[in-house]
Amino acid sequence: MRFTSQTSSDGVSEQLFTLGEIPGVLWTPEGAADARPLILMGHGGGQHKQAPGVLARARRFAADGGFAVAAIDAPNHGDRPKDERFVQATTEFRTRMGSGENPAALVAALHELVAGQAVADWQAVIGAVQELDGVGAGPVGYWGVSLGCGLGVPLLAAEPRVRAAVLGLLAVDGLAETAAQVTAPVRFLLQWDDHLVSRAGGLALFDALASSEKTLHANPGKHGDVPPFETDSALRFFARHLG
Amino acid sequence: MRFTSQTSSDGVSEQLFTLGEIPGVLWTPEGAADARPLILMGHGGGQHKQAPGVLARARRFAADGGFAVAAIDAPNHGDRPKDERFVQATTEFRTRMGSGENPAALVAALHELVAGQAVADWQAVIGAVQELDGVGAGPVGYWGVSLGCGLGVPLLAAEPRVRAAVLGLLAVDGLAETAAQVTAPVRFLLQWDDHLVSRAGGLALFDALASSEKTLHANPGKHGDVPPFETDSALRFFARHLG
Repeated sequence: MRFTSQTSSDGVSEQLFTLGEIPGVLWTPEGAADARPLILMGHGGGQHKQAPGVLARARRFAADGGFAVAAIDAPNHGDRPKDERFVQATTEFRTRMGSGENPAALVAALHELVAGQAVADWQAVIGAVQELDGVGAGPVGYWGVSLGCGLGVPLLAAEPRVRAAVLGLLAVDGLAETAAQVTAPVRFLLQWDDHLVSRAGGLALFDALASSEKTLHANPGKHGDVPPFETDSALRFFARHLG
Repeated sequence: MRFTSQTSSDGVSEQLFTLGEIPGVLWTPEGAADARPLILMGHGGGQHKQAPGVLARARRFAADGGFAVAAIDAPNHGDRPKDERFVQATTEFRTRMGSGENPAALVAALHELVAGQAVADWQAVIGAVQELDGVGAGPVGYWGVSLGCGLGVPLLAAEPRVRAAVLGLLAVDGLAETAAQVTAPVRFLLQWDDHLVSRAGGLALFDALASSEKTLHANPGKHGDVPPFETDSALRFFARHLG
């Protein structure tokens, strides 16, 4: 793990790193020396580790929750190389979306292309970050919606170190069997008027999770309109399960 | 308004009152002298103003939120006289439930019998309680699920003083038009495995509310299994909208 820059503002330290081929960011409360829970922050499709929403939530979780927060570029996103197969699939996705096709199966196919690598990446990141002073081997949480949910469900199914997750904004297509292996507490966000995810498909993914504690939070609005109070709520959810 | 008893414990004062024919309870933080928001607490079918769930939430809202909280016996419940028509309807409800009939229309008919009176009762209670020192004419919230939702939706449609509500555990039957007149922020509780309310019926009532801010919280479990953390969440919801 190699750190390439370190800055600080408003009480939060932000460190860019690379771990093998994985570019990442680690946020911690400034001066953090003792162990604390770690939250992994997945980004949406076409976004990256420092997208505005990721940044705002990560800084909030570090400043107000005292958590360590790590984000990485998903395969084929941000500073990572794009492979030809993924670029072709993305182009096909846009074309078929433009012709009015139901996007759920297309989205699932895109996620499927990168899920295996993404799970391995996060597992490596957990191991490396938990070696650091100011993080340590405490409980781990995961926050990710849309693409972040498509990669988060396989991560949760594979990785018992992740003990609580905020997921959502995604339909069940391609994920029913994996979701049935998820047992950690889940907060699941659904946008009632989502133009990219059908209401029934989102409800079905929530339904498929095997977690005995899972709560669906549905709010009016489109895919990107999750209300700000859900960030406050997520912070308390993580504090309850990881704190 | 006539107070008939006053007790205090754990920092919360509990006063029994009657207002005309309405028996009620008022909880306030002990020694409350200045104005504070008021939360009206509706009870479930067959319950009353001091049912264990009502008591626990009311004391919590007063102690931890600093709210005044009022509960009353709904018509035909608790210390109020039962009218013959309601008793007959309840008996018929039990018989038809026992034979496996879908309860939604039967529940709606029971609620319909008392909704008009219940709305008038709550309106009288708001007026009387807001005259008291330690309450005053601040914003009003409403908490009620199941029967409490069936009577709360008409109250919210009729009463602009009610500025935020926790509702739920009820299907849309008989309420679609009234729900379309509700514009206050709503937190809507749904139990994913409710044996008395169909999932589709509950989702449809949430959908029918005209409120621009409304959030559905769905949790696994049956009608009575709302998890305790939803009380914490409701307290913060009221603090945000009434505080």
